[in-house]
Amino acid sequence: MRVRIALREKGIKFEYKEEDLTNKSDLLLKMNPIHKKIPVLIHNGKPVRESGIIVQYVDEVWHDKAPLLPSEPYPRAQDPYLKGQARFWADFVDRKVFDAGRKVWVTKGEEQKSLMEEFIGHLKTLEAELGDEPYFGGEKMGYVDVTMVPIYSWFHAYEVSGNFSFESHCPKLVAWAKRCMQHDSVSKALPDPEKVYEYVLQLRKRLGIE
Amino acid sequence: MRVRIALREKGIKFEYKEEDLTNKSDLLLKMNPIHKKIPVLIHNGKPVRESGIIVQYVDEVWHDKAPLLPSEPYPRAQDPYLKGQARFWADFVDRKVFDAGRKVWVTKGEEQKSLMEEFIGHLKTLEAELGDEPYFGGEKMGYVDVTMVPIYSWFHAYEVSGNFSFESHCPKLVAWAKRCMQHDSVSKALPDPEKVYEYVLQLRKRLGIE
Repeated sequence: MRVRIALREKGIKFEYKEEDLTNKSDLLLKMNPIHKKIPVLIHNGKPVRESGIIVQYVDEVWHDKAPLLPSEPYPRAQDPYLKGQARFWADFVDRKVFDAGRKVWVTKGEEQKSLMEEFIGHLKTLEAELGDEPYFGGEKMGYVDVTMVPIYSWFHAYEVSGNFSFESHCPKLVAWAKRCMQHDSVSKALPDPEKVYEYVLQLRKRLGIE
Repeated sequence: MRVRIALREKGIKFEYKEEDLTNKSDLLLKMNPIHKKIPVLIHNGKPVRESGIIVQYVDEVWHDKAPLLPSEPYPRAQDPYLKGQARFWADFVDRKVFDAGRKVWVTKGEEQKSLMEEFIGHLKTLEAELGDEPYFGGEKMGYVDVTMVPIYSWFHAYEVSGNFSFESHCPKLVAWAKRCMQHDSVSKALPDPEKVYEYVLQLRKRLGIE
C-alpha cells in the first residue's frame, strides 16, 4: 500500500502485480532472493525492496514532484534534522504501531487486552506528535503519513472486535486518517474495511483462536 | 559505535557521554522520551535518535566529507538505486545479523547451535554481497560498513564459546573487518574483544544459562 500511495502521489504510472504468498512466483524469488517477501519495486529492470526503502527510492528518483521527505537540494540547514525526525517516526510506526497492532490478532483474553492498550497508547503518542498539523508532513502528506495510513483500513476490524471507537481515544488521528483518505492515492490503495474484518475472522479461526 | 565511527570518518569533534542504563540520566529521558534508549546525537540542541537514522543524519549534514551513502547532489541517475541497496543491506544487518547474533548469547544446546548456524549463514550472505570489493561501500567505507563492523568486536567471543574460527567460514568477511579496523574511527570505537567475552560470560551467568 505504501508503495502504491507514493507512486500515485508522484503521478507515476506502474503495473501492479499481486503475489500468491503460498506459491511465490519465480519473478519474486529472483528479485528478492534474500527475504522472498513483497513488496518489490522493479524499475529499470532492477529490484528495490522493503516498503520504507522503496518509498524513499521513489521520493529520490521523482524528487521534483510531491516530495515526501523534506526535499533536496542542499543547503537547507533544517532538512537533515526534519528528515531524521520523519525517519524516526516512520520507524516508530513500523516497529511499535504495526507490531503491536499485528499481535492483537493472534492473541486473546488478557494478553490481547494489554496489547490493544499498548496499540492505543502508540496511537496517542502519534496523535501528540501530529499536534494541530493537517499531516505528519506538515501542510502536505509526507513520508510518515504514507507509512502510517495503511493501518487505517484495519481500524474497523479493531473497533468491531473490541466494541469501542478510536474516535473516543484519538479523535485527531481519526480526522487525519479521513483527510488522507480524500487523496485518490490513499483511497485506491487501502482495502475495504469490511473485507479486512472478514480476513481477521478467518485468520483467527485458522489459528484456532476463535 | 556506529555513530562514533561516522563522526570520526567525517572528522567531526564531539563529546561522548556513556549512559548507565540501570539509572538513566535526565538528559537521556528528555532527549529520547519515546524509546528512552541510546544512542542519541544532540546537535544544535536537538536530538537525533536511532543509530541508522543518526548515521544518515551525520552523512547529510556533513555531506562534503567522506560520504557514506552514494552522495548528492542530483542528478546522478544511479544514486537512488545505490542508496536503496545500501539501506537494504544495512536493514539486513540490523534485523537479521544482529538479531540472530544476539539470540546466540541467551540460548543454549540445540537452539543455540541452530542460531549460530543461522548467524553464520547471514555472514556468508553478506560475504557474497561484498564480493571482491574492499568495502561494502566500494573503494571506501560506507553506510553498510559502518552499520556492520561493530559486530566484529564480538567475533572473538563467538569463536571461543563455539570453538571454531570465522576465518574458515567467511575468510573474505574477516579480511574486510580487519581492513575496517585499520581506520582509526573503527579501532577507537570498538571495545576490546577480551572484555566483550568477559561481558558475555557474566551475562550468561546472570541469566542462569551457564
